[in-house]
Amino acid sequence: MAGIENNLSEAYPMNGGNGLYSYAKNSSIQKSVSDAAKLLLNEAIADKLNIKDVSSSKTFRIADLGCSVGPNTFFVVQNILEGVELKYQSQGLNSPNPEFQVFFNDHASNDFNTLFRSLPVDKQYYVAGVPGSFYSGLFPCASLHFVHSSFALHWLSKVPKEVVEKNSPAWNKGRIHYSNAGDEVVKAYSTQYAMDMDCFLHARAQEMVCGGLMVVIVPARPNEVPHSEAIANVMFDILGSCLMGMAKKGIVEEEKVDSFNIPIYYASPQELEAAIYKNGYFSIERMESLPRVTTHDNLSKAKLFALSMRAGMEGFIKEKFGHEIVDELFDSFRKKLEEASSIYDSGKAINLFVLLKRKIN
Amino acid sequence: MAGIENNLSEAYPMNGGNGLYSYAKNSSIQKSVSDAAKLLLNEAIADKLNIKDVSSSKTFRIADLGCSVGPNTFFVVQNILEGVELKYQSQGLNSPNPEFQVFFNDHASNDFNTLFRSLPVDKQYYVAGVPGSFYSGLFPCASLHFVHSSFALHWLSKVPKEVVEKNSPAWNKGRIHYSNAGDEVVKAYSTQYAMDMDCFLHARAQEMVCGGLMVVIVPARPNEVPHSEAIANVMFDILGSCLMGMAKKGIVEEEKVDSFNIPIYYASPQELEAAIYKNGYFSIERMESLPRVTTHDNLSKAKLFALSMRAGMEGFIKEKFGHEIVDELFDSFRKKLEEASSIYDSGKAINLFVLLKRKIN
Repeated sequence: MAGIENNLSEAYPMNGGNGLYSYAKNSSIQKSVSDAAKLLLNEAIADKLNIKDVSSSKTFRIADLGCSVGPNTFFVVQNILEGVELKYQSQGLNSPNPEFQVFFNDHASNDFNTLFRSLPVDKQYYVAGVPGSFYSGLFPCASLHFVHSSFALHWLSKVPKEVVEKNSPAWNKGRIHYSNAGDEVVKAYSTQYAMDMDCFLHARAQEMVCGGLMVVIVPARPNEVPHSEAIANVMFDILGSCLMGMAKKGIVEEEKVDSFNIPIYYASPQELEAAIYKNGYFSIERMESLPRVTTHDNLSKAKLFALSMRAGMEGFIKEKFGHEIVDELFDSFRKKLEEASSIYDSGKAINLFVLLKRKIN
Repeated sequence: MAGIENNLSEAYPMNGGNGLYSYAKNSSIQKSVSDAAKLLLNEAIADKLNIKDVSSSKTFRIADLGCSVGPNTFFVVQNILEGVELKYQSQGLNSPNPEFQVFFNDHASNDFNTLFRSLPVDKQYYVAGVPGSFYSGLFPCASLHFVHSSFALHWLSKVPKEVVEKNSPAWNKGRIHYSNAGDEVVKAYSTQYAMDMDCFLHARAQEMVCGGLMVVIVPARPNEVPHSEAIANVMFDILGSCLMGMAKKGIVEEEKVDSFNIPIYYASPQELEAAIYKNGYFSIERMESLPRVTTHDNLSKAKLFALSMRAGMEGFIKEKFGHEIVDELFDSFRKKLEEASSIYDSGKAINLFVLLKRKIN
């Protein structure tokens, strides 16, 4: 049972509850991408799910990894469930509709209370919440038929230790991320990413039935774009400069900024492919960029991204710097984003839709 | 999939968190009983669990229904797990130890965040939390191998509606429970109990594998003891008189006390047996009283029971009467308990250990 507990993983929960800055109220970007992914998800199930592979069980088990507190996770689960039901019906024969059991997973520090209290009242599935890092084993062997993970796998299991070691060539002084950092810092992050993906894929390979499908939606860096130009990296650069600005004013300690690093890595499709091939248990059935969401002008986008960044990062920032600085930090972040709003036109960001199938042994 | 959602059930969570009046810090009575039950639990598994009945699955699934926030649930689960492992080892042959998956169930309003954050670090099982009333279906068909429920099944799914209807002969004016109430009130409670047990047993019969075991530990009223003399009922009588005392002083509205009823029923072993026979899916393998816990003098017991009552009832009382009255109410309750501390010598209470086996169809 090795791997059930992975104490090395750190947890960075989204803002809980239902308040102004909660993830529940500030995850519309994730929602738009999920909507764009819905069509691909339906196609994935219609084209690639083989009921015969999975119908030995009367229960069809779905897991959403890194589900946060909803409501996005509920929409996605409903999509999957309807897709699978359609597939069962289209195959007719002797396969009655299965019972569905849905496992909502996130770190133990996630706000499961909010998640459980906002479950859809008309849900047609059995619910379970699973606390723990998806970089370790979370489920019994061969127990899952469909795995989904959206906007979660860009979070590393932890900050690479080299980047906070003063004597390391990868020490990331004056920055909070690898964008615009030296090669050693980038290397530390990309190495951590490769190790984490290996843990993730290994754990899922054990937990999924052969023939089971996994959909991963993850923000990524286009293959040909340097780290420093990917939009999300630019944003962390801006957030870092806001923090350094506050350090210069004496509002936060500069040493704290030096030792603060955001454990997020935007891999390129090539890097992700490499991790999947190395692991060997999954075939890549589909990998493509989701269409860009263009419903907002750049200024609205700046506001939206500022709120989204706050919902995702506030807890993490508070833990390091205290709650006092949060309003000022995100105010100055929003202003800088608004000034730099042309970055949204450069298109140097993608959201990747990846469909994997657990190979038949 | 009917029965997945049962909106008729009401939720009465224990006090969450880890504070002075939390259930986590005030469940030592439940813990003592669990300790006494440990021996019986081990015997139950050694004598009555037939690995052949359940070994078709590589995963052994355990559910603790009405688990609250811990730590008792973790001790119990560990006992069950060790017992099952011993049984697997003793049967040798070709049965390797299974993987364990443990489902912790309680109402969605239970504090699952505290539960998940206090999981034993060295646990050797996969964890899932399942929100919802155990009077409805919570798990897929034939998915559970062992079910446990301790100190939970005396909670009814709801207050019987007749007891709050002014025009009903069962209207329970001036009391908060059926003890010392008229026959109609008792009848309303016992009828609700019978209906609830039927729902409970029906749901479990679907969810458990044939040959699966269920252990229920529940405070009960000895067959020959009238409702009004069972200790737990006496306590609710005292709590009710404290509330009525506060009503007389104008601190709470008398009408609120009239419409406030505690949805707890202490069934006799005979009543429980009748419910099990009527349901028909389970055989009673063992039913006996647990040895009395006598580690405290009566005065300490009064304090202990007062704290225990608060941990269990505070949320429920607050919801009806507001948080302002809670300290005063439980102070006066503790004092009255101390004065009446001889009730502990009368022995008119039992904790029942019941071992059920899901019949082979």
